[in-house]
Amino acid sequence: MGEVRKGMLLVVSGPSGVGKGTVSRPLDEDASFIYSVSCTTRAPRPGEADGREYYFITEDRFREMIDAGEFLEYALVHGNFYGTPRKPVLEALERGQNIRLEIDTQGAEQVMGRMPDCVSVFILPPSYSELRRRLEGRGTETQEVVERRLANARQEIADCGRYQYLIVNVEVEEATRALLSIVQAEKQRASRYYPTVEE
Amino acid sequence: MGEVRKGMLLVVSGPSGVGKGTVSRPLDEDASFIYSVSCTTRAPRPGEADGREYYFITEDRFREMIDAGEFLEYALVHGNFYGTPRKPVLEALERGQNIRLEIDTQGAEQVMGRMPDCVSVFILPPSYSELRRRLEGRGTETQEVVERRLANARQEIADCGRYQYLIVNVEVEEATRALLSIVQAEKQRASRYYPTVEE
Repeated sequence: MGEVRKGMLLVVSGPSGVGKGTVSRPLDEDASFIYSVSCTTRAPRPGEADGREYYFITEDRFREMIDAGEFLEYALVHGNFYGTPRKPVLEALERGQNIRLEIDTQGAEQVMGRMPDCVSVFILPPSYSELRRRLEGRGTETQEVVERRLANARQEIADCGRYQYLIVNVEVEEATRALLSIVQAEKQRASRYYPTVEE
Repeated sequence: MGEVRKGMLLVVSGPSGVGKGTVSRPLDEDASFIYSVSCTTRAPRPGEADGREYYFITEDRFREMIDAGEFLEYALVHGNFYGTPRKPVLEALERGQNIRLEIDTQGAEQVMGRMPDCVSVFILPPSYSELRRRLEGRGTETQEVVERRLANARQEIADCGRYQYLIVNVEVEEATRALLSIVQAEKQRASRYYPTVEE
């Protein structure tokens, strides 16, 4: 019943530790979405394949791509570059495929600036104490890193009105349902969906 | 978790016989929506109470209200006027309550023109032959009325791009799920929803 006119670029963002990945996980089962393979300058880990987890490229090549405007968004994290190449995303959207990016707020703001038609979702924690608990619960960050992330979170949350949709992640199942509803609703958009009524 | 900043005005429309009412029925159970009582110049039927099913008013009063711009939308149907008064709708939205209107396309276009922030959904039939079957299946319309409604439906469907969301009503349960997703997604809109993150 009808056809997709243009794919949707879904951007899911929020503070570190808020549960972006967990809340988005059920979208893995939505076959209308394809996975966007990022580029990175970090070395492959055992088991990682070039073009599957990441495109593993040199820093020189990465900088060339930045200069040529080939990234939808990129960031320098712990001395390594990570970026989402623009061309495969645009091509997939033209084919009517949906793409999902789970990215930090810096990346999300770059994408929202370059792709104003994207669907942007910001995930919020129920409280700062709960966010602290989640960040500390990972057991992988130093106290200093936790404090810095909490400070960042305050600024990020203050700016959440830049996103189209907000979800407070009190309970993962409920937050996931809200995200799936947003995806479903966006699939019904007249600007994206071309229904056919048969004779 | 958070509060509603402003209610949503949901407009569900589509050709006669497409199933607007059936698809929207589960929203009766959503307590965030209130029922908008329309005005009419037709006489009350047995069991109808003024201010419950309708406000029953005279044609003179109705015309006064038209002239004073007191209707969000109105129409003359089989010699009787029907209209949605504007003021209670605006007041409810300000209080953060949601309102749902299931109206024909003429009414919907008036509302979309006057309330550009409304959420507009157009329901489509899977095919013209199915729409004909549904209209004839009611057994209450003459063949002439059915033909006129089908002719109107073609024009209405050609204009469906004026609505924000489109749903093809192939199967009622699926169409209802799509509508409920749209409502859920619109509740998460940053422009309508003000989340609070506790200290």
